[in-house]
Amino acid sequence: MSQTLSNENLQNRFNQLRSNKAFELFVVGIIIFSALVIGAKTYDIPPFVANTIVLTDWFITIFFLIEITIRFLGEPRKRDFFKSGWNVFDTLIVLVSLIPIEDSELALIGRLVRVFRVLRMVSIIPELRTLLTSLLRAMPQLGYVALMMFIIFYIYAAIGSMFFADVNETLWGDIAISMLTLFRVMTFEDWTDVMYETMEVYPFSWVFYVTFIFLTAFAFLNMIIGIVVNVLEDQHRQERRDEGEPTLKELHQELRELKSLLRERVD
Amino acid sequence: MSQTLSNENLQNRFNQLRSNKAFELFVVGIIIFSALVIGAKTYDIPPFVANTIVLTDWFITIFFLIEITIRFLGEPRKRDFFKSGWNVFDTLIVLVSLIPIEDSELALIGRLVRVFRVLRMVSIIPELRTLLTSLLRAMPQLGYVALMMFIIFYIYAAIGSMFFADVNETLWGDIAISMLTLFRVMTFEDWTDVMYETMEVYPFSWVFYVTFIFLTAFAFLNMIIGIVVNVLEDQHRQERRDEGEPTLKELHQELRELKSLLRERVD
Amino acid sequence: MSQTLSNENLQNRFNQLRSNKAFELFVVGIIIFSALVIGAKTYDIPPFVANTIVLTDWFITIFFLIEITIRFLGEPRKRDFFKSGWNVFDTLIVLVSLIPIEDSELALIGRLVRVFRVLRMVSIIPELRTLLTSLLRAMPQLGYVALMMFIIFYIYAAIGSMFFADVNETLWGDIAISMLTLFRVMTFEDWTDVMYETMEVYPFSWVFYVTFIFLTAFAFLNMIIGIVVNVLEDQHRQERRDEGEPTLKELHQELRELKSLLRERVD
Amino acid sequence: MSQTLSNENLQNRFNQLRSNKAFELFVVGIIIFSALVIGAKTYDIPPFVANTIVLTDWFITIFFLIEITIRFLGEPRKRDFFKSGWNVFDTLIVLVSLIPIEDSELALIGRLVRVFRVLRMVSIIPELRTLLTSLLRAMPQLGYVALMMFIIFYIYAAIGSMFFADVNETLWGDIAISMLTLFRVMTFEDWTDVMYETMEVYPFSWVFYVTFIFLTAFAFLNMIIGIVVNVLEDQHRQERRDEGEPTLKELHQELRELKSLLRERVD
Repeated sequence: MSQTLSNENLQNRFNQLRSNKAFELFVVGIIIFSALVIGAKTYDIPPFVANTIVLTDWFITIFFLIEITIRFLGEPRKRDFFKSGWNVFDTLIVLVSLIPIEDSELALIGRLVRVFRVLRMVSIIPELRTLLTSLLRAMPQLGYVALMMFIIFYIYAAIGSMFFADVNETLWGDIAISMLTLFRVMTFEDWTDVMYETMEVYPFSWVFYVTFIFLTAFAFLNMIIGIVVNVLEDQHRQERRDEGEPTLKELHQELRELKSLLRERVD
Repeated sequence: MSQTLSNENLQNRFNQLRSNKAFELFVVGIIIFSALVIGAKTYDIPPFVANTIVLTDWFITIFFLIEITIRFLGEPRKRDFFKSGWNVFDTLIVLVSLIPIEDSELALIGRLVRVFRVLRMVSIIPELRTLLTSLLRAMPQLGYVALMMFIIFYIYAAIGSMFFADVNETLWGDIAISMLTLFRVMTFEDWTDVMYETMEVYPFSWVFYVTFIFLTAFAFLNMIIGIVVNVLEDQHRQERRDEGEPTLKELHQELRELKSLLRERVD
Repeated sequence: MSQTLSNENLQNRFNQLRSNKAFELFVVGIIIFSALVIGAKTYDIPPFVANTIVLTDWFITIFFLIEITIRFLGEPRKRDFFKSGWNVFDTLIVLVSLIPIEDSELALIGRLVRVFRVLRMVSIIPELRTLLTSLLRAMPQLGYVALMMFIIFYIYAAIGSMFFADVNETLWGDIAISMLTLFRVMTFEDWTDVMYETMEVYPFSWVFYVTFIFLTAFAFLNMIIGIVVNVLEDQHRQERRDEGEPTLKELHQELRELKSLLRERVD
Repeated sequence: MSQTLSNENLQNRFNQLRSNKAFELFVVGIIIFSALVIGAKTYDIPPFVANTIVLTDWFITIFFLIEITIRFLGEPRKRDFFKSGWNVFDTLIVLVSLIPIEDSELALIGRLVRVFRVLRMVSIIPELRTLLTSLLRAMPQLGYVALMMFIIFYIYAAIGSMFFADVNETLWGDIAISMLTLFRVMTFEDWTDVMYETMEVYPFSWVFYVTFIFLTAFAFLNMIIGIVVNVLEDQHRQERRDEGEPTLKELHQELRELKSLLRERVD
């Protein structure tokens, strides 16, 4: 039983530790430090610095392993820990970092995972988490706009590769390459070079580009802006609601109650 | 009479079938499949695959013919069927697909219609239909902005081809080409190349480009954004209205009734 | 006296004529026709067509002269006619068109004025006039943003021509050319070419470009969008007000009156 | 004692002077003049004009010194003077201008400070000061968006320099250069040239660019627009509040008081 008690004791301590502000700041510091190490590796570095970096890397990996263990042990109900997507993400990143990167096959994955450790910043800082959540909340509304845009892209790409494949194989060879070319046209990136080339064979092909630009770049991008503005406004209004501001509907209800009260008195 | 009964019976069955969720999903599946077939045709494919594609194409055409027939037979009042623009569009696409594409003259139209079959996705999925409707609803407001922009384009194109036709025949040869060049300037696509060329002859021609960019790209694009935001907000407010939220006007009315009730009592 | 009567009679007739919908449509038709003539002149045309165009041009000029005279004579109080900026603009355009374009010195002005006749479309169609007015109404608010942006441009241009004049005389020669180069950077037009050139001499000059892009393209363009959205919303709200929707302030006032009525009764 | 009196007298006079509208306009005039002098220096000028400019420069410096002294002496409580950031900025600019620019080492700083004198326009004109303040007020909200964007940039830059450093050393050499290249990709500036180059080695590297453009250029820029729109709306609403418009909460409160009044009467 003393075992259980000391266990509970330990858990409480870990729980306190992980909610500790100083601990959080220290973890953020280590994440920034690990990001700097990743950045340093992209420069030409003398061998002894490279060795230090390998050591530092192991230190960071072990630190993150200890940190995630503390978080896990501090959780009162162990099952709830993996219900949070952030915890799952953190654990995965840490576990994959444990794979030794000497193995040439897995080296690439090991190095990529080290880069994604920077994303742990989002899982640690609450404001960034909120930002990402609000962006994700706008996704379902954006989903159908994206589908619509994909349909437009697909149709134009099919027509494009049907007609222009003989003009320029590199840009209009098949439907996938055509879609990449159209994405480029949508960003206005040297789109006239693409157009002038096809206009030499099909003089009226400017209609293809101009209508495509109108449909995608103008109408739909504005649509996306509109949706994001709406989502942000909703959030804003929600906040005001939470602060206790009544709706017009509630005011209406109050007025009706008043009137019936008066009517009772009149009769 | 038994003939009529069985007819009504059939119609009810077709009506049930076309409202069936599984049937709808199956049709969407076939549309996606037909889109994939169109995409596949843009790649270099061995002859036997090409033959399979021709067969598949006929299968899809026949399936769409059957589907549209079911929709038509399922309609309680046959006249209403062609009142919906979507039904007319669907029927046209299917009927034109029936034209054999071996004929070299009509082959192009046949191939294009097969591409437009992807658009049937919009007519099947209600959310995409709503999206398109809300975009079309913003059109009348955008119409005058478009007319204004066309006037600006026309005036600048007339001035452009008047002065710059001798500088660069390809870009400023006549008013139509000049408008295309100005559209390119509006998208900022290598517009300085166009400008530096005319500045060598007319050193002050930068005024032409800078004022044009200000008038079109800045002022008017923002106008369009503003209109789209407004339309979306209106829609949003409308939805809240439909949920039973009262207007300020209604609240005002209630208050006045209350006051007159009170006044009656006072006297 | 019969003279006066007939004068008044004529004025009434002219007034009726200028408010006539068919007359308005006819004028719009002539404006579109004159625009097409301007467009036609930019193409290579055989001499006999050119002669027809010269004749048509005189016909249009005389028609506009008659039309503006009808408008003037139809005005009940002659002084009010020139109070409207649109009337002044229309009269000027018509009068300057009367200058014969054979004179080589004035030919250019004559041809330019013929182009600006297309702008009469805005003065005739009320919706376009409203659009322009609402754009002009946003101007005072945009004025200070424009001044702020000009200050930023001026400072960066001064610094740019101070440091980079030796690197590229054509782009950074003096403060005016530098401002044009910066305008190009703001539109993202091949700005990296400009940057990579100066980075060879001043490796840290990317700070100059990146801060400039942030200050102008991002922060301020968004500011402009915000102001336009605001102006449109104000207009929208104003329209709702005109339809008789009460303000919250008025509702508040009503409530207070109700309370005092009740209080009177209580006492 | 007469000394103190005359001091107070002087202070009042200076205070009146600095609030004087004509004095303000005169200072604005001198700032514009100093800006023109800075602009003039970027042109090739004959020596005697250059000499005049040096003299003018000294005159402007001394005028600003006198002006700032008047402002300081006009301040009733001397300590408050430096509490305003604008006063500190103005004083610094004037003091640094006093350093003689003949010294070749400090000449650059002296010339830069003369350019920044144009910024005094913002500290003098109240509307520009308001504009800047409202922009700064949006900063904390934008801060986390900026941090999020920096994380995305950092991760993509790390991956970019990991894979593409061998393809193009100039664009992807180290993490700093990669971030500059990614900034260029975000502005759509010749980004396809960057992409096509890496696609020759890694055919699927278009995924890297397309996802990066989606994450930064689309989602986040819209986010920024949304925040700016929100801040402007808040400001707007605040203004309406200041004009005495009640909140819905206040209306609700009034209604509740009315009801309790009525209830009292009923009982």
